[in-house]
Amino acid sequence: MALIVQKYGGTSVKDTDRIKKVAQRVADYRKRGDQIIVVVSAMGGVTDRLIGLANEIMPEPTEREMDMLLATGEQTTIALMAMALNQLDVSAVSLTGAQAGIVTDGVHTKAKIRNITPRQVHQMLDEGKVVIVAGFQGQTAEGHITTLGRGGSDLTAIAIASAVKADLCQIYTDVDGVYTTDPRLVPNAKKLDEISYDEMLELASAGAKVMQSRSVEFAKKFGVPFEVRSSLNQNPGTIVKEETANMENVVVRGVSLDKNQAKVTLVGVPDRPGVASRIFKALSQAAVNVDMIVQNVGHGDKPATDLSFTVERGDLPKSQRVIDELREDIGFTKVVAQAEMGKLSVVGVGMKSHSGIAAKLFEILSEQRINIDMISTSEIKISVVISLAQAEEALKAAHQAFIG
Amino acid sequence: MALIVQKYGGTSVKDTDRIKKVAQRVADYRKRGDQIIVVVSAMGGVTDRLIGLANEIMPEPTEREMDMLLATGEQTTIALMAMALNQLDVSAVSLTGAQAGIVTDGVHTKAKIRNITPRQVHQMLDEGKVVIVAGFQGQTAEGHITTLGRGGSDLTAIAIASAVKADLCQIYTDVDGVYTTDPRLVPNAKKLDEISYDEMLELASAGAKVMQSRSVEFAKKFGVPFEVRSSLNQNPGTIVKEETANMENVVVRGVSLDKNQAKVTLVGVPDRPGVASRIFKALSQAAVNVDMIVQNVGHGDKPATDLSFTVERGDLPKSQRVIDELREDIGFTKVVAQAEMGKLSVVGVGMKSHSGIAAKLFEILSEQRINIDMISTSEIKISVVISLAQAEEALKAAHQAFIG
Repeated sequence: MALIVQKYGGTSVKDTDRIKKVAQRVADYRKRGDQIIVVVSAMGGVTDRLIGLANEIMPEPTEREMDMLLATGEQTTIALMAMALNQLDVSAVSLTGAQAGIVTDGVHTKAKIRNITPRQVHQMLDEGKVVIVAGFQGQTAEGHITTLGRGGSDLTAIAIASAVKADLCQIYTDVDGVYTTDPRLVPNAKKLDEISYDEMLELASAGAKVMQSRSVEFAKKFGVPFEVRSSLNQNPGTIVKEETANMENVVVRGVSLDKNQAKVTLVGVPDRPGVASRIFKALSQAAVNVDMIVQNVGHGDKPATDLSFTVERGDLPKSQRVIDELREDIGFTKVVAQAEMGKLSVVGVGMKSHSGIAAKLFEILSEQRINIDMISTSEIKISVVISLAQAEEALKAAHQAFIG
Repeated sequence: MALIVQKYGGTSVKDTDRIKKVAQRVADYRKRGDQIIVVVSAMGGVTDRLIGLANEIMPEPTEREMDMLLATGEQTTIALMAMALNQLDVSAVSLTGAQAGIVTDGVHTKAKIRNITPRQVHQMLDEGKVVIVAGFQGQTAEGHITTLGRGGSDLTAIAIASAVKADLCQIYTDVDGVYTTDPRLVPNAKKLDEISYDEMLELASAGAKVMQSRSVEFAKKFGVPFEVRSSLNQNPGTIVKEETANMENVVVRGVSLDKNQAKVTLVGVPDRPGVASRIFKALSQAAVNVDMIVQNVGHGDKPATDLSFTVERGDLPKSQRVIDELREDIGFTKVVAQAEMGKLSVVGVGMKSHSGIAAKLFEILSEQRINIDMISTSEIKISVVISLAQAEEALKAAHQAFIG
């Protein structure tokens, strides 16, 4: 008998038919004798509808009240899921985040989990019940309802799995697992049997959309292995876990492409201390998320340098306004903005022990006559910024060369 | 500075526009310096939508989970109402029934309030906030979410008013108050300035639809006066309170008509002990709610009697089935069912000290050539069952004669 935590996202529970299908899957596990905790999101579209209602009332809704409002989404799903299990003669009971003992800090709409005291969960499991827990939500020590922000239901599942020392944590989604790259762009992308937390994190930050980084970080911090798998079939998924020695035999685990990049270059920036700090502080205050930064070394009599950085395409106009306001003060020569950029990343823990991956990537791109605009590396990742027009071609070539 | 509890029902908060209008009313009270607790229902139609979802999952949804589901309705409204007040620069905060300290028994979908510990409510009022409380819901001592059944939000308002010793409890609805009769049937019906709990109870049981009896009973038990008034205008409403000596000067407070009655007569029932008990026990077990019962005295050698009772029209087929099954066992002669009946009631605490009201009612009906099928009286009410075809005519005549 195993203790299993299963998490089902919004598309897996988007209507009552889907909820019944999920209940059937849970019932099948239960009938094998496993103890099950099910974490669910709001039904697909519900959260957006609630945000729409709030915006009819006030343009920037009070965050405490937004949490009170949004928490109803998951509460609706847990009740319906418990009913669907009861209808299958499986004893089941629903718990809100607060009832499940999930205590968070008081930062409404993006609260952090402080601790979990799953007294009720254990008691109900001991009574032979499937326990359905509302994802994405908790309460403060003072009893205010909070929500955990984007990807919050994954976080709930992993945190509960950690708190109850579950044998298995399954994150159900609408894909079969984690792939070597996006199968919609590269048809021969392969599903991975396993991947390390760090590789998963690098892929997430490189634009792969399977899970939010914070959930993976949480799983890594507390050593919770989990499986990403599909709620639409019975295929085994991808196990995400601590890196093993064995994993380093695979040099490149995955290749990803972020097509949503834009590049800004400041030409002729005076090479003085504090200039870069002023530029990026101003961008940060404007809530622009800067990704990659590259600066050339200054040279000559009057040292000046070129400074390039990338942002999400949607933030480009705001970035340009911020930079324009700094022009007189800092005194750079001109600004060049390129809206249509892509970021190609190659990720694998094997890179730690294998050299020459960067050289190989540059060679592949060169063969395709693809110009590299910017380069950034970490211990287990190489990213290059390239023209969006050539990005998919580059992705296919890199996948073919590194993975096959 | 007064402490006021205001309750707004589903039609008063049916969409975000209505919620904004209610918020404006609350803000106006608040700006006078009053402390306000607002109790709200689910937005009109939401509860039905949730019940629909549940029924898609299971025909008879588990009651615990039904409560978990339905409680989201009021939780949505409290969040939106708090936002609407915040948008008007009024500090406001929402509380679920559980957070407001409403503790109930464990009878899901029709829980009874056990006690209220409004610690959070007091604390937030002291901080200068308007406190928005979800009506219709509470939690058990063990922390399970419960709902209070029909009319539950009125009950929440009255119970909180009692717990915090409010100066005033206002029940906002879509009518101006309690009328001498239904203004849709009798255009010169008059709004009452005040009415006693007992009169209100008799009118409710006689088919007047302003409030559920249990809320009025609760108010009576704990001595909470309240005002029924409209959320659509600024007119004063009707004060419902303990009977005063003064009230007896008005002999008839109101006249009501229940058009939803059916009558069943068992002819030739053997006059033996236990026969009536068997009949009404069988009806009760079939969940038929019997209203009025009349039995003639038996006479002659082989004593037999006629037994008549009334039920809601929708329960008539079920009642007939139940009676048919008893026929052989009990041995009555025949059953006569009349589906189209009405019940006219005349209510007033003044009847205690004024005699002749029954005689006057019979005379009025006689003048209109209206036949009386059944009669039932209490200390402050006379009800007669008459043909539905003549019921409205009878109502008008009685209202004219007793009230004007």
